[in-house]
Amino acid sequence: MREAPHLTFDLDKPGLSKGHLVVPKGTDCGALSLPVFSLNKGEGPQLLITGGCHGDELEGPIVARRLIEWLPEAQTCGRIIVVPVLNPPAVQACSRNTPVDGLNLNRVFPGRADGSLTERIADAVSRLLLPMADTIFDLHSFGPGWDFPPASTTHPIADPNLMGKTLRMAEAFKFPMTLVWEHPGSPGMFDTLAQNQGKVFVCPELGGGTVGAEALAIYEAGVRNALIALGLVKGEAEYPTFLQAKSTQTLETRRSTDEMKAPARGIFEPRCSVLDEVRQGDLIGILHPMDSLSADGIDIRAPETSIVYAIRSGAYVDVGEGVALFAHPLIR
Amino acid sequence: MREAPHLTFDLDKPGLSKGHLVVPKGTDCGALSLPVFSLNKGEGPQLLITGGCHGDELEGPIVARRLIEWLPEAQTCGRIIVVPVLNPPAVQACSRNTPVDGLNLNRVFPGRADGSLTERIADAVSRLLLPMADTIFDLHSFGPGWDFPPASTTHPIADPNLMGKTLRMAEAFKFPMTLVWEHPGSPGMFDTLAQNQGKVFVCPELGGGTVGAEALAIYEAGVRNALIALGLVKGEAEYPTFLQAKSTQTLETRRSTDEMKAPARGIFEPRCSVLDEVRQGDLIGILHPMDSLSADGIDIRAPETSIVYAIRSGAYVDVGEGVALFAHPLIR
Repeated sequence: MREAPHLTFDLDKPGLSKGHLVVPKGTDCGALSLPVFSLNKGEGPQLLITGGCHGDELEGPIVARRLIEWLPEAQTCGRIIVVPVLNPPAVQACSRNTPVDGLNLNRVFPGRADGSLTERIADAVSRLLLPMADTIFDLHSFGPGWDFPPASTTHPIADPNLMGKTLRMAEAFKFPMTLVWEHPGSPGMFDTLAQNQGKVFVCPELGGGTVGAEALAIYEAGVRNALIALGLVKGEAEYPTFLQAKSTQTLETRRSTDEMKAPARGIFEPRCSVLDEVRQGDLIGILHPMDSLSADGIDIRAPETSIVYAIRSGAYVDVGEGVALFAHPLIR
Repeated sequence: MREAPHLTFDLDKPGLSKGHLVVPKGTDCGALSLPVFSLNKGEGPQLLITGGCHGDELEGPIVARRLIEWLPEAQTCGRIIVVPVLNPPAVQACSRNTPVDGLNLNRVFPGRADGSLTERIADAVSRLLLPMADTIFDLHSFGPGWDFPPASTTHPIADPNLMGKTLRMAEAFKFPMTLVWEHPGSPGMFDTLAQNQGKVFVCPELGGGTVGAEALAIYEAGVRNALIALGLVKGEAEYPTFLQAKSTQTLETRRSTDEMKAPARGIFEPRCSVLDEVRQGDLIGILHPMDSLSADGIDIRAPETSIVYAIRSGAYVDVGEGVALFAHPLIR
C-alpha cells in the first residue's frame, strides 16, 4: 500500500511544536522530510509561511529561520506555521526547478499523490498545510539576473472582496513596492489554489542576485509589519529605507505594455534604476552589439510614461529576451 | 599552411581606428574576430584595456563600450587600445569558461597557436596586443554569488619597483578598496605574463550578481580616475560614493587566515556587509541546517580582527565552500 503524506506531530497542539511534513517516496526517489514549525496560541489568524519553493531564491528560507527564532517571544494569538524550505532538492541544487523531475513546484499545485517528486510535495502541502491556514505568505525572490525592489505581489482576483483583502494584506508589508501583477494565466500556481479556496495569499519578492545583510533586514521588517497588521504580534510598523528613501507605492501591470524585449542580441547596459519613473522616449538601457565597434549601440527607450519595476542586470541577451518591466500606479 | 593571428588594421596609424583581432580557426571551431578600438595620439602612455575575459562578468565590456564613446573627445596623448570582449563565446554562454573547450582564459596565458580556442585567443592577445602596451587594465567582476565592493586588485610582485608602480596605479582608481591579493600561484594568468615583462597590470573587480546603473557609474568613474592619473585625459579625480561613504582603503590578504569555509552544509545567512571591520569572535554569518528546525544554526565568527572584503550571498553551501574573505590594512 502507498504511504500517505503526513505530519510527524499534531498542528492543533497548543504552544510550540517542531517536526516534519513527510512526502512519501515514489518511483523517482525516496521519502522527503520537510522541517515544519508551528506556534499555536489559540484564537486568531491562521497563518502559513512558506519559503524555498524555488531553489535559487533563498531570502525566504533565511527570513523564515529568523522568524522561528523570535516568534516564540513575540506571537500573542492565533497560529503560525512556518515551512522554511518547501523544495529541499531544488535548494541543494541552487535550481529554480526540482532536479529529479525538472518541474517548477509553483506550476504543479494541487499536485498528485502518485506523481513525480515535485507533484508529491505539492500534494502534501495542499492536503495537510493549506487547510490549516486562512492567510498564506509564500516567500519568493525575483531571482538572479534582474534588479527588483523589495516588493509584495499579488495577481488580479475575480472576487472583489478577496481582491480587496489581499491588496490590503500586501500593502501591510510596507515594502517600497506593492504590485498587482497581471500574469499570463499559468496553471498550477500555489497562489491560485489558495485564492480559489477564498484564502488571502501574498508573495513577497525581493530580487537581484546578491542576498546581503541589508536586503534581508528589509525583507524581515516587511514580514514583521504584516504580522503586526494581522494582530499576531504587537509593535509599530516600520517603513524600510530603500534607495535612500522611505516610501511605498502600489502599482499594477498592463499586459500589453509591461515588458520591453531586446530587439537584437547583444550586451545589455541598464541606464535606469528600479522604481524610476520614466516618460515615453526616456533612455532606459543600451544594447551593445558584440560583433563590431562600428555598429552603434541600440537605445532602448520607454514605450510610455510608467515606472520601471524591474531592469535586467548587465548581461548578454538574445533577441526577444526581456530587458525591462513597467508598471503604473494602481487605479482603484 | 596555418593562418596566423592578425589585426585587420594598423595599430600604429595616428588617430582613431576600429577593426578586429582575428583568432585563426582550429580543429574545434572556426576563426573568431574580436572587435578592437585604438586611439593613437602619439607620445605618452601605451594602455591596453580588456574586458570579457570571463563570460559571466559583463561590467567590463559595458564600461569598455562607454570608454569608446567618450575617449575620442577626451584623450590628449598616448595610445589606448580597447578590446571590450576577449572571449565572445563565453559571453554568449554567460559562462566563466569557454564552452568549446571548457578552459578558463585567465589560466592559459601565453596560450598556444596550435591549441584549442581558449589557448588560441590567449596566443593572439599575447603576440599582437600585449607588446603594444606598457600598462594593462583587465576589467573583471568578482562574479555572481558574492557581495564584493568596487575594487582594484593586484597580487604581490617580486620586483619592488614594479610592485610600487602597480600599487600606485591600482590606488589611482580611487575605488572603495584597493586589494593586494595573495593568490595561490595559479599558472597561466594574464597578470603574471604581463608583469613578467615588466608591465603594470591592474584588475578592477566589481562584484555581486546584479549589474545596475549605479554600480556601472562607480566602475566607469574609477577607470576615468586611472586615465587621469596616467595623464591620458584631463580632469579631476572623483571619489565614488559607496555604502553612503566616500573613502578608499588599501588592504592585503594573508593566505593563512583570509578565508572562512563552511563547517557544515546548509543555507548561509550573511550577517555583515562588505568593508565591515570585525573583531575576533564577531558574528559574520549563520549557517542554517536544512534537515531540522531543532538543530541550531551554526554561528560563523571572525577568526581575528580584520576587514570583510567579500561575503557569500545568501545561498546553499556545502562543507568547505568559502563564505567570507578577510583582509588587513596593507603594511607598506
